[in-house]
Amino acid sequence: MARPEKLSAGEIQERLGKLAGWSLAGGKLRREFACKDFSEAFGKMARVALAAESMNHHPDWSNCWNRVTVELSTHSAGGLTELDFTLAAKISGIFGS
Amino acid sequence: MARPEKLSAGEIQERLGKLAGWSLAGGKLRREFACKDFSEAFGKMARVALAAESMNHHPDWSNCWNRVTVELSTHSAGGLTELDFTLAAKISGIFGS
Amino acid sequence: MARPEKLSAGEIQERLGKLAGWSLAGGKLRREFACKDFSEAFGKMARVALAAESMNHHPDWSNCWNRVTVELSTHSAGGLTELDFTLAAKISGIFGS
Amino acid sequence: MARPEKLSAGEIQERLGKLAGWSLAGGKLRREFACKDFSEAFGKMARVALAAESMNHHPDWSNCWNRVTVELSTHSAGGLTELDFTLAAKISGIFGS
Repeated sequence: MARPEKLSAGEIQERLGKLAGWSLAGGKLRREFACKDFSEAFGKMARVALAAESMNHHPDWSNCWNRVTVELSTHSAGGLTELDFTLAAKISGIFGS
Repeated sequence: MARPEKLSAGEIQERLGKLAGWSLAGGKLRREFACKDFSEAFGKMARVALAAESMNHHPDWSNCWNRVTVELSTHSAGGLTELDFTLAAKISGIFGS
Repeated sequence: MARPEKLSAGEIQERLGKLAGWSLAGGKLRREFACKDFSEAFGKMARVALAAESMNHHPDWSNCWNRVTVELSTHSAGGLTELDFTLAAKISGIFGS
Repeated sequence: MARPEKLSAGEIQERLGKLAGWSLAGGKLRREFACKDFSEAFGKMARVALAAESMNHHPDWSNCWNRVTVELSTHSAGGLTELDFTLAAKISGIFGS
């Protein structure tokens, strides 16, 4: 499968406008989610792991009890690609927001 | 920690009456949950695993795509104990029903 | 992606011969794994979940503390296909045996 | 259960000396693990989650494909406690190093 190409600044802004809750930080797509507790957070993380592995595209992410912070970029393209926006939308769906 | 004692038939019926969705099958507490898909099912399973390990009380359970079947009993007591009803209530909470 | 076709009895026997530890049971590929404890078992299950979701091909499986029992078949083909043998090999790798 | 008390600098150094691979960073216990791939990393993370939830003591941790970085401290004590060293030893065991 051909890997997507790096998006231009204009293409990124257009896609960001349709992706509620995510922002640009250091060239990456970034969002922080707050859950009820660790159990709910880890249940969501397991689902994000399934989505990421299925796409062979993985997040830089961290967890502190009920909070999960996700950063997305495409290392091989040196920036953001369609893969990042597709995974971001899936992650929003998993967290239900 | 002292392990709970085996409940009598009367004690089991009283507790079952307050635990929606669960039934007795072969001397175990049993319930089947249906999720939207495998991702949702496995996310819930990860949370059940956390609850079970925290209680040091583990289910006999199976999964087939979107379905998760849970059976609970206390092997060391040779029957059902408070542990099973406590874990059953937590699992109901995890599946939101 | 085209789904694999149902394998013949001869094709199944040939593939089974190269797949240590798995047997045929009720028309499914079956194997039981024993781990050290629940933690090790669930860690492996998380990896099996990732492999299954990536292939969009999921096991019928169960867990009881340190034991994980896996059954594989391809419902849509009404029997065993290459998908089952591919996933079986991945699962053997995950359990390190 | 009474929560452990904050350890002194001397107590921390003594415990650090017996805990291979971990270092102090910003007042926290810190270690980075490298796995073979995301699947192996997430399988270990699932086990760390079980250990953490069982202790009701959770890490600040992050993951980037095959790497898992763990930071431990006891927020309620404002520093490091026995809980952190106990969980660190468990995590070392999970990663097999």
